[in-house]
Amino acid sequence: MNLSGCFFLPKQSPFYLFSLSYCYYSAAPSLILRPSVPRSVLRLTTPFLHRPPSHHLNPKRTIKSSSTCLKSTPTTLSATAAAAAASESSSSMAAFSEQARVPPALQLPTPPITKFKIGLCQLAVTPDKERNILHARTAIEEAAEKGAKLVVLPEIWNGPYSNDSFPVYAEDIGAGFDKSPSTAMLSEAARLLKVTIIGGSIAERDGDKLYNTCCVFDTDGNLIAKHRKIHLFDIDIPGKISFKESKTLTAGESPTVVDTEVGRIGIGICYDIRFQELAILYAARGAHLICYPGAFNTTTGPLHWELLQRARATDNQLYVATCSPARDPGAGYQAWGHSTLVGPFGEVLATTEHEEAILVAEIDYSQIELRRTNLPLEKQRRGDLYQLVDVHRHCA
Amino acid sequence: MNLSGCFFLPKQSPFYLFSLSYCYYSAAPSLILRPSVPRSVLRLTTPFLHRPPSHHLNPKRTIKSSSTCLKSTPTTLSATAAAAAASESSSSMAAFSEQARVPPALQLPTPPITKFKIGLCQLAVTPDKERNILHARTAIEEAAEKGAKLVVLPEIWNGPYSNDSFPVYAEDIGAGFDKSPSTAMLSEAARLLKVTIIGGSIAERDGDKLYNTCCVFDTDGNLIAKHRKIHLFDIDIPGKISFKESKTLTAGESPTVVDTEVGRIGIGICYDIRFQELAILYAARGAHLICYPGAFNTTTGPLHWELLQRARATDNQLYVATCSPARDPGAGYQAWGHSTLVGPFGEVLATTEHEEAILVAEIDYSQIELRRTNLPLEKQRRGDLYQLVDVHRHCA
Repeated sequence: MNLSGCFFLPKQSPFYLFSLSYCYYSAAPSLILRPSVPRSVLRLTTPFLHRPPSHHLNPKRTIKSSSTCLKSTPTTLSATAAAAAASESSSSMAAFSEQARVPPALQLPTPPITKFKIGLCQLAVTPDKERNILHARTAIEEAAEKGAKLVVLPEIWNGPYSNDSFPVYAEDIGAGFDKSPSTAMLSEAARLLKVTIIGGSIAERDGDKLYNTCCVFDTDGNLIAKHRKIHLFDIDIPGKISFKESKTLTAGESPTVVDTEVGRIGIGICYDIRFQELAILYAARGAHLICYPGAFNTTTGPLHWELLQRARATDNQLYVATCSPARDPGAGYQAWGHSTLVGPFGEVLATTEHEEAILVAEIDYSQIELRRTNLPLEKQRRGDLYQLVDVHRHCA
Repeated sequence: MNLSGCFFLPKQSPFYLFSLSYCYYSAAPSLILRPSVPRSVLRLTTPFLHRPPSHHLNPKRTIKSSSTCLKSTPTTLSATAAAAAASESSSSMAAFSEQARVPPALQLPTPPITKFKIGLCQLAVTPDKERNILHARTAIEEAAEKGAKLVVLPEIWNGPYSNDSFPVYAEDIGAGFDKSPSTAMLSEAARLLKVTIIGGSIAERDGDKLYNTCCVFDTDGNLIAKHRKIHLFDIDIPGKISFKESKTLTAGESPTVVDTEVGRIGIGICYDIRFQELAILYAARGAHLICYPGAFNTTTGPLHWELLQRARATDNQLYVATCSPARDPGAGYQAWGHSTLVGPFGEVLATTEHEEAILVAEIDYSQIELRRTNLPLEKQRRGDLYQLVDVHRHCA
């Protein structure tokens, strides 16, 4: 089986028909018809077989299937024979796993530090921007005092979370720190306190567009990455919660993974966490940790907030940290709170309720390797059946 | 942005260099360099940029990036202007979502029935195969009496779960029902009781190979699908649980989705649930429900069993049902139990403890559409950033 010959071409491409002759696989269909079982008894209805058969385009597929059928003469099987057959199959399976990520997953890099403390600042946010900036700064200082080397802020921490407020509180981050008091404060705090900061998010103005943007600062105060929320929060649960960020915001164009002094970190903002593909892609880029500043609400929060964090951590065997604003009973949007750190086995390592809190907890990256040894999912994936393409990395 | 022109070619392909000229994207890098901010302040370290720059191969990428930069002159932004910009961006985003699944996701089919009862038979399994078959039959009858139209059995229900037992209890399913007493019983029960059966799994002998296989029967007793466990359970958590199915078993070669009288059902067996890609692929093939017969253990069970079911259901907005054997304190392998039905919002609709139980609960497929309207994840995915390829369906 050689999937490296499998082209992904649009049907309208002049090379489509040509490519099909390269696009073969050795997989037996999930049901093999045998002479001893009447055809009428066996009716396979997997939807992809509803498509017209492509055997005339793809002779190798037919050959492979029928050769599997020919081998299947009933025999009495000993444990030894089964073990021999299984071992052979097992080694061929191992070859497929790398193909499950396109391009293949990067090796987990050795982080500059293995054990360190992370601080999650679950901030109360008011309509007073200047107060919010000062307040966030105090919280970062407190987290640093408690030993945090990495400090995370919530989504939209410099003003209220609403479509009316986004344009009012937005800052032109690209125009430099003198035009952006929120990021100027983050840069200065990072430099003075010698901490890495995942700066939650603020509304960002860029030309005639607004984004929901997270800035990352190194310990010298440099802005080392900027993530614009990729998946805008447009939901409608009648009688519960309706919101449409796309009324005012524009979606970001890139996933963001950044190397810091506390490891390789993938960034998502709130609704980004619902898209499992983004976390898969970050894991394949070698992330140790994914940080999601996020403001889930009191409807989806209790249902999905912890679930999604634990799922992303467990499925991808890495750390996940979230940071929410504190709940403000007077605000138009009721944040769920519950900022949380989850380990690579899906274990909740630290969490809190909905009030203001500064959560400091320990990350130990050696746990990633341990869990990946316990459950070697990376080596068990089936690239012969599914492939997750990281479009930017693939095309870079 | 037109990703339909993006080829997925191996680097060794003679068309690789040619294809790169087609492989462009309009995405701005996650950090845009501006003249007003010194370059030293902005250090982008996303790992995919560690690769040698491909600008010389891909001139369009450079053009797109710099044109984005040119547009970004700071302006004061009104809410109306932001809304106009956001609306334009929103409509272009909608076009990407279809590309997140390759080939594009199928429409959710109209199921033959919307509301019905599912029965999960959490069976006690003994070393006495004949007793296990009779016992399973009684349980199916009881579930049917309670109104179940779909009955699910556990993983490995006709004998103990162990590498020593698999060859002893294995049946040659393909040789017909007279050679396979376990599937013969399932076929007869389905026909007489007029229920659809997801027959848990048994060890299957096929030539010199053994598989962990789930058989699906329609209400006429026809075997309509056969799923061989795709991801073998090879884990090692020292002092807790070690198992290596690949010592004796061979992995299946195909995902399995089957149209039944109770909707389109995707099948996974136990460890298959850890691989989120399989559930994504089933959702894209139009499954209403994924059934995972599975025997998690007392280490991974409390950590991950419910988590993974709820994650698969929530992320893919469909029903998930699991069926475990009951725990036998005297057995070598301690099953976790806790057979469960989860709805498309990740809500646990019915569950049980580890003792023997027949769980009957209602499925209402109209909830799938409701939840997909509330959170239109399918329309919000970013096929310009990630694509999940269903290899068999793509190549069929």
